[in-house]
Amino acid sequence: MSTDTRFSIDRLKRFSRAILGAIGVSPEHAVVTTDRLLEADMRGRTGHGLIRIPLYVDRIEANSVNLDPDVRVVNDGPTSALVDGDNGLGQVVMTCAAELVIDKALKMGMAWVGTRNSNHAGAAGIYPAMAAARGLVSIYMAVGNANSMPPWGGNTKVLSTNPIAIAIPAGDDPPFQLDIATTVASHGTIKVAALTGEEMPIGWVVDTDGNPITDPTKAHDGFLMPIGGYKGSGLNIAIGLLAGVLNGAAFGRSVIDQNQELSTPTNTGQAMFAMKPDLFTPGYAASSVAVHLDELRNSDSDREDTLRLPGDRAAEIEAESLKLGVVVPEALRARLNGIATRLGVTPLEDP
Amino acid sequence: MSTDTRFSIDRLKRFSRAILGAIGVSPEHAVVTTDRLLEADMRGRTGHGLIRIPLYVDRIEANSVNLDPDVRVVNDGPTSALVDGDNGLGQVVMTCAAELVIDKALKMGMAWVGTRNSNHAGAAGIYPAMAAARGLVSIYMAVGNANSMPPWGGNTKVLSTNPIAIAIPAGDDPPFQLDIATTVASHGTIKVAALTGEEMPIGWVVDTDGNPITDPTKAHDGFLMPIGGYKGSGLNIAIGLLAGVLNGAAFGRSVIDQNQELSTPTNTGQAMFAMKPDLFTPGYAASSVAVHLDELRNSDSDREDTLRLPGDRAAEIEAESLKLGVVVPEALRARLNGIATRLGVTPLEDP
Repeated sequence: MSTDTRFSIDRLKRFSRAILGAIGVSPEHAVVTTDRLLEADMRGRTGHGLIRIPLYVDRIEANSVNLDPDVRVVNDGPTSALVDGDNGLGQVVMTCAAELVIDKALKMGMAWVGTRNSNHAGAAGIYPAMAAARGLVSIYMAVGNANSMPPWGGNTKVLSTNPIAIAIPAGDDPPFQLDIATTVASHGTIKVAALTGEEMPIGWVVDTDGNPITDPTKAHDGFLMPIGGYKGSGLNIAIGLLAGVLNGAAFGRSVIDQNQELSTPTNTGQAMFAMKPDLFTPGYAASSVAVHLDELRNSDSDREDTLRLPGDRAAEIEAESLKLGVVVPEALRARLNGIATRLGVTPLEDP
Repeated sequence: MSTDTRFSIDRLKRFSRAILGAIGVSPEHAVVTTDRLLEADMRGRTGHGLIRIPLYVDRIEANSVNLDPDVRVVNDGPTSALVDGDNGLGQVVMTCAAELVIDKALKMGMAWVGTRNSNHAGAAGIYPAMAAARGLVSIYMAVGNANSMPPWGGNTKVLSTNPIAIAIPAGDDPPFQLDIATTVASHGTIKVAALTGEEMPIGWVVDTDGNPITDPTKAHDGFLMPIGGYKGSGLNIAIGLLAGVLNGAAFGRSVIDQNQELSTPTNTGQAMFAMKPDLFTPGYAASSVAVHLDELRNSDSDREDTLRLPGDRAAEIEAESLKLGVVVPEALRARLNGIATRLGVTPLEDP
């Protein structure tokens, strides 16, 4: 890891936009997509950052993504809407949906916006982060883009990693931010392990006989495991119904494996709920959240440091990234530079 | 288990109402509380049914529950409200909140209602079931009533089992119904094991050194484990913030152990969200949910039976209970009959 290099956010933005531009993404969409990818990298969600560019390039070159989508709001209600992404890049579609649900929630107290005909939209947590920055509580759910798990008790892969992310503002403190796949490991985490050549711990993936698989390049041969057995499996299905089926998006057998079926549109579905946190105890919620989070951080009287809560480590990495730049693992840089060179884009040289 | 006996729902209703009446619960509140307790038993959620009566009796006799509460709606908005339970029985408070959130969602498309000054309200899933019966999607969350788990990485018990329940209507089929504690085992499940003298599996409870505890009567000496490690811990905290802190209800150190601190009001918080499922694809959602659930049930082509999804087993037990009556384990019957006899209520004799 000693050869991993940090690059300034500006440099990485220019690099990502140039690659996306070189394969035909409009400047506006390249900016939005790059911003969302780098928000993941800046918070240490490496599995959903620039590491995704090679796949996006492959899919765009296979003509399975619409680069000039008519992203439109259908079934628009006072507190709800569906965003039909017209098979545009997922970050473009979900950014539209997130902005819409935030606007509606600020006006009406709460709102829920779903998407269909979207695509992989990056780290789940980046959309609730947008709502938290506007003082809103929010919950984001997505149907994952590769079936990798059976329902509990089964042996056929019809469920994906279906993540859920929740952000709760905490006044002047950074918000509480949870961002989890409902599987023990996410595809992103496994991609990082494969790229860096690390073994997966036992418990991430099992083969069809239930034996552990620890080679991340062989993960596709096995099943991901849900968190908490039947509980995580049930939560995963609930997310699939809420983020997929309610929106007329893919779920179950209709999910396209975005890594294998490069030329097929995914009809990805996402859902985001946002709400003013002070509807119940006016003027009380956000500062009280901060007090309670601090109480949890300091709950062990015999400990010198404080406990890290969801979002704390991401906030630390984000502060570090803003100051020092973003770490790009050497293997990822080599991969991206290969693509850049092929497309005539200036590669990431040592800074 | 061969001596466990089934009793008719009518008989159990009369029995439960008589016990509650004998300790001063009003007829109206005894009906509501009994109905919610039996809904749990009828669905096999034995840990949250009649088994809870002894504790409710103890708490009422210790004067920590208000039997004549002024349950009132405060901060009433078009899509949101807070129900202040005035320390009434949890089933009474949450039934009021559930009816309110259902009414608002039917009118406005979606709604979120919180509670404070409530109490333990029984099985999480019974409230979403009420919304599903009206055709609504819903999510219920509650702050549990006994801290039994540290935040991930810590060693001080400041978190409870904080359950989440989700119901999604499926047209003419029974709804999808998830009802899970965010800990591997719930207090209710452990109470059942303690009562029936069964060992707990490894993974439910660990001692402060991380070694398994399998004697359910010693569970209190250890920590419950969250589902999925840091993921379930984070989800548990999110539920505590949303169902407790936003409502000004207890969370963290302010949670009262309802089993140990019998004479202290709990200030329990709950939250329930309900939404019309057809806001996004009109006329499409419920029947499509049924199709997708059937696809999952039949996902294994090499299997003769079908997979059970969340809610399926509960629906089977419910049908059985309606036909044959509800199973009352012998140890529970003895316990309840002891209370009944003391209070001058006719005990549950062999039917």
